[in-house]
Amino acid sequence: MRFVKKISTLKKIISHRKKKGDIIGFVPTMGYIHEGHLSLVRTARKQSQFVVVSIFVNPPQFGPKEDFRAYPRDLKRDMQLLKKEGVDVIFNPTNKEIYPEGYKTYVEVFDLSKILCGVSRPTHFQGVTTIVLKLFNIVQPDIAVFGKKDYQQTVIIRQMVKDLNLDVKIVIGKIVREKDGLAMSSRNTYLSNDERRRAVVLYRSLQWVKNAYKKGLRNPKKATQRINNMISKRGGRVNYVEAVDKDTLKPVRNLKKGTLIGLAVYFGKTRLIDNIII
Amino acid sequence: MRFVKKISTLKKIISHRKKKGDIIGFVPTMGYIHEGHLSLVRTARKQSQFVVVSIFVNPPQFGPKEDFRAYPRDLKRDMQLLKKEGVDVIFNPTNKEIYPEGYKTYVEVFDLSKILCGVSRPTHFQGVTTIVLKLFNIVQPDIAVFGKKDYQQTVIIRQMVKDLNLDVKIVIGKIVREKDGLAMSSRNTYLSNDERRRAVVLYRSLQWVKNAYKKGLRNPKKATQRINNMISKRGGRVNYVEAVDKDTLKPVRNLKKGTLIGLAVYFGKTRLIDNIII
Repeated sequence: MRFVKKISTLKKIISHRKKKGDIIGFVPTMGYIHEGHLSLVRTARKQSQFVVVSIFVNPPQFGPKEDFRAYPRDLKRDMQLLKKEGVDVIFNPTNKEIYPEGYKTYVEVFDLSKILCGVSRPTHFQGVTTIVLKLFNIVQPDIAVFGKKDYQQTVIIRQMVKDLNLDVKIVIGKIVREKDGLAMSSRNTYLSNDERRRAVVLYRSLQWVKNAYKKGLRNPKKATQRINNMISKRGGRVNYVEAVDKDTLKPVRNLKKGTLIGLAVYFGKTRLIDNIII
Repeated sequence: MRFVKKISTLKKIISHRKKKGDIIGFVPTMGYIHEGHLSLVRTARKQSQFVVVSIFVNPPQFGPKEDFRAYPRDLKRDMQLLKKEGVDVIFNPTNKEIYPEGYKTYVEVFDLSKILCGVSRPTHFQGVTTIVLKLFNIVQPDIAVFGKKDYQQTVIIRQMVKDLNLDVKIVIGKIVREKDGLAMSSRNTYLSNDERRRAVVLYRSLQWVKNAYKKGLRNPKKATQRINNMISKRGGRVNYVEAVDKDTLKPVRNLKKGTLIGLAVYFGKTRLIDNIII
């Protein structure tokens, strides 16, 4: 496994591999690797001959009052975990390597970036699409794997890839959960023991809505209101709960197959997201 | 010479050529080809083995009150002129091929896109960078040639290429002028005979400032004021005349080597641009 800091070095490695005919698989991460990331790496491994994982905590996708500085980092542990999975290259550039002085260019997928998580994080997805485009241009992957927990992100990236005529196959890996159902996230480490226990309500509320739909619930307002109540009772501060079409992310009039229930909830200062497609 | 309408067809052609090891040269145009374009094609020809010229009048780079519909088009003549130059592929997609229904993604080079021409054309450069990025992703050129008349565009595209880690060498072709000095432009066709005669003042005013600098003029306000007066006297309505650094496009305190004098002027409804580096 190679550990690469420089864009120019990585480009040379990739160019060499492409000439050999290798299919390049790519998993972009912000590090603090957990089982969710590792399952994406395994997916990339299966579908490619050469796997690149980037570890880069991307400043532009954090708002001015968000947790860029506090975001958990443990490079040594990340390297050990990724080595075990047979990753070929870890790309871990500095901020300056990615955004040198005088950096000016940003990509935005309009409308999709301003709804759901984009309401309270108005510049977040512009930061995401910009870094993902840059990483795609650097890594030149044939396939790139993203996690389904960041569902809106996957829709936005698919749209960007289509709109910008990129030749990357986007693969979405399933949500990996803790035993009690909490979706794995590097941010779970922020939770106190008490918050951690209460946070299970996110998964439970999503399971509830799935079952309620099976039993005949069709009214999205009733569904999201009930989820709201369930979460509030367990001390979560709801940022949003919405029922939207899984492809367009537009609100649905009636719950149906292909409706995404997405939510963002604060426990203390920690913002968690989760979703389910019914 | 092949004439291609479909992105997928062009991608196949390019992929085939790249496997052969050809260097791909690219000249993006909006058609209505003149000697300025042809000189860019010749430059591309010299530095590559396979030359693609795109002809696409790009809606997003026109403002709502601008000349998208009126923009001159003559595909038959364009094809004849480009065939003579040994162009390998003309890429002439439809609007729908480039911006299919539900298109959402735009790229912007911030700050640089809001000054000079960007003041009166606030969405112009976002349209330019978006189409250029898309065309780069489609054509995958090793080199791309742009004209110096659209000077701000060349600075913005260089910045985008650097920021987005693209592997395209940007080459800037010189301004080709009519015998009397007017910079060649597809939009010159809008000018009445009278306007056409008066429009020579743009070139003359730029020649004046170059000479005045040689003779010791250093004050940018004096320089631009004088140019303003010269143009107004000939019936031109000045949009802007500015003295800026050729690399940063920031206003200079003193004229010096590497100062760009850029201007945009209306004759009737026709907006013309020109520039000189002193």
